[in-house]
Amino acid sequence: MAIITLTTDFGEKDYFAGATKGAIHSELPDVRIVDISHLVSPFNIPEAAYIIQNAYSSFPKGTIHIIGIDSEINAENKHIAVKLDDHYFICANNGIMSMICSEIAPEKIVEINIHDKIQTSFPVLDVFVKVACHIARGGTLEVIGKNIPEIKPIKNIVPYVNDDKTQIIGSIIYIDNYGNVVTNIKRNFFEAIQKGRNFEISARNYTFKKIHQKYSDIVNFEIPENKRHDEGRKLVVFNSGNFLEIAVYKSNSDTVGSASTLLGLGLMDSVSVHFIPSSIIPKGMEIPQDYSKASDY
Amino acid sequence: MAIITLTTDFGEKDYFAGATKGAIHSELPDVRIVDISHLVSPFNIPEAAYIIQNAYSSFPKGTIHIIGIDSEINAENKHIAVKLDDHYFICANNGIMSMICSEIAPEKIVEINIHDKIQTSFPVLDVFVKVACHIARGGTLEVIGKNIPEIKPIKNIVPYVNDDKTQIIGSIIYIDNYGNVVTNIKRNFFEAIQKGRNFEISARNYTFKKIHQKYSDIVNFEIPENKRHDEGRKLVVFNSGNFLEIAVYKSNSDTVGSASTLLGLGLMDSVSVHFIPSSIIPKGMEIPQDYSKASDY
Amino acid sequence: MAIITLTTDFGEKDYFAGATKGAIHSELPDVRIVDISHLVSPFNIPEAAYIIQNAYSSFPKGTIHIIGIDSEINAENKHIAVKLDDHYFICANNGIMSMICSEIAPEKIVEINIHDKIQTSFPVLDVFVKVACHIARGGTLEVIGKNIPEIKPIKNIVPYVNDDKTQIIGSIIYIDNYGNVVTNIKRNFFEAIQKGRNFEISARNYTFKKIHQKYSDIVNFEIPENKRHDEGRKLVVFNSGNFLEIAVYKSNSDTVGSASTLLGLGLMDSVSVHFIPSSIIPKGMEIPQDYSKASDY
Repeated sequence: MAIITLTTDFGEKDYFAGATKGAIHSELPDVRIVDISHLVSPFNIPEAAYIIQNAYSSFPKGTIHIIGIDSEINAENKHIAVKLDDHYFICANNGIMSMICSEIAPEKIVEINIHDKIQTSFPVLDVFVKVACHIARGGTLEVIGKNIPEIKPIKNIVPYVNDDKTQIIGSIIYIDNYGNVVTNIKRNFFEAIQKGRNFEISARNYTFKKIHQKYSDIVNFEIPENKRHDEGRKLVVFNSGNFLEIAVYKSNSDTVGSASTLLGLGLMDSVSVHFIPSSIIPKGMEIPQDYSKASDY
Repeated sequence: MAIITLTTDFGEKDYFAGATKGAIHSELPDVRIVDISHLVSPFNIPEAAYIIQNAYSSFPKGTIHIIGIDSEINAENKHIAVKLDDHYFICANNGIMSMICSEIAPEKIVEINIHDKIQTSFPVLDVFVKVACHIARGGTLEVIGKNIPEIKPIKNIVPYVNDDKTQIIGSIIYIDNYGNVVTNIKRNFFEAIQKGRNFEISARNYTFKKIHQKYSDIVNFEIPENKRHDEGRKLVVFNSGNFLEIAVYKSNSDTVGSASTLLGLGLMDSVSVHFIPSSIIPKGMEIPQDYSKASDY
Repeated sequence: MAIITLTTDFGEKDYFAGATKGAIHSELPDVRIVDISHLVSPFNIPEAAYIIQNAYSSFPKGTIHIIGIDSEINAENKHIAVKLDDHYFICANNGIMSMICSEIAPEKIVEINIHDKIQTSFPVLDVFVKVACHIARGGTLEVIGKNIPEIKPIKNIVPYVNDDKTQIIGSIIYIDNYGNVVTNIKRNFFEAIQKGRNFEISARNYTFKKIHQKYSDIVNFEIPENKRHDEGRKLVVFNSGNFLEIAVYKSNSDTVGSASTLLGLGLMDSVSVHFIPSSIIPKGMEIPQDYSKASDY
């Protein structure tokens, strides 16, 4: 049986998510509904794009993803259904899909046109659920919409690179539950510009010369446990979504602090990477293959 | 297979909701459990009543709704099971059901009397789950309780109307995830008093003369997008539950603000509607049928 | 079909929980996934231990519990799978299981050794899910790990008792959604030391001489409802998990206050019990069997 996921800014207190699940089960008693997140900040499209991009691919092929952010239909905000990577996405054409589509070309995009019959102030319930159930029953996208060639883009999702490719200027697009700050610099993008050079990553007045493979690589396990002071130490990793992330080891905003609170970093703040020409690296300081052995922060 | 929904003030951190779901699955492995909300404010009965009223009817007929708010049994707080609109509700007889019952007459109300055998400090787990599973297996209400004629009412759910019907005084019963403030004035109630007259809606020192059909009706799409300043504008709509709501377009309490933060409105604050006699409306200012074309805020 | 539960510190906004559920359904389309909690404070092992201990036993035998707290593998933090009380637990060997294991001896503990093939920065997704699905398909623990004799203990989970057993000094290990403060003093531990004596429970400058059976036992129902002032009154109960708890009747941190806010009690604060020798109790003041009839607070 199909899976329908939900990613919204409904919050978890209101009746919106519950009513949506009820409406799905009223059409399809046996479908499986999985909540991805209802805590996207209201109307925050980049956040929603980041969450769905990193969650969707763990689901089985054929999964149908409802994304309910800023979905009221009007002259400028149309509803779309997208088939991409053998998954289906139903959302407003407001940029949410552009982050995923920048990496994987969509197989099909339709602008939903079943609205003539539906007057609604709750489009997720009254439109997206109907479309999702149609797809779950094996229906095609052509039946519920007309093909369109492309989706509306989102701004500022790709970092800036200067002309001589010595610098990337990215920005913080997400702050996670641990207060770790996630940039829009992805691992393959970084490595394509880096071409093996050393680097310095800067955010506010903090600088990092190393990217760790995992959070606890910052710990020196040869020091006895009671003499270590690693909690609260800052580090840089590529997170599990392959985004460059400034993190704090065992962070907790309420106790030891987090990258966001300790470094004073917020959404849209910039994070820059300076690449250092190999020629000026003294002998014996060559770049190691393994990031975790590079010079320490 | 039956659906059992959960609406509680348990919060989402504690073990309460998890244990409840485990207990249901221990009795009925195949039942479908749907969380409506666990974030009702502790002991806030009107909030719970509002949430369940607006969520339940999206579910299929036969769905069983457990409502776990203020459910410790004592001399004055009995447990009931209600059949209404072909749905089942299990809760304490503390007023939660009176908002729903004010619109739809219950088919059957029983006061649960299986407690003789159950001593508990966790009645949702130990009593409500048992009753819900009994109903899910096709059991009748008579087996688990004795018929009672009516439920305990909740106070102040109906707005005040003055004698000459020129004024409704309602109050704010809910603030949603977007900070929109929801009043206890429902669309059909409003229209029955209005009888086509013009009106002024007042909350604190703000006045509205128009009810929009949807949030983005406040936008003038003929103005170029980069010259509009609509985010943060105040408006009035009937929300998807048909309650009169003061809203802010694309509100976000953390950024542009919300109706609650910008207008300083909180739970129980009053919202009044003054109706304007048709006779004093100058020629050419007659009331339009469509609210969205009425004089602007 | 098997049930897999999730208890993590992922929060509910990020993609972590959604991706984990997607990965489970990719392996096992029909498995039932139940969220216990994703709101454990980041890296807070005692909180996680308390939640899973009180939730797990409501689930059917054979349920598989994934606990994702501080689960990055390193030299000192290994992954384990534990069979206990006919339930399965998959987590890091960081003390989470020691609270449960202090009451029920595990049947089997294995240290997971499937990691040679898995390089990951998201061990719940890449390791725990694989182990859970292996068990759900009927696989044995020996296939995914090697037997180890014991788990890593957690500190300070058992309260201190003085030599002449006149005093218990416990501490607050959890604060629940109602702001009630939960101590590490369990009912059977308390009663074994008490041996029927009277007692005084102290926290900060508050003292309680009675343990109520349920919250509303503090109410005197013979007083007319409009003359009572019970909301906000402090009391002591054994909660539904049998932990000694200082509570406030119908508490709500935002309105009437809670035990945590009104008494100024936080995590790790101490709560002490003094037992009063029976010999100094005047005639007629003997200890009643029923706590609720003991001298009032």
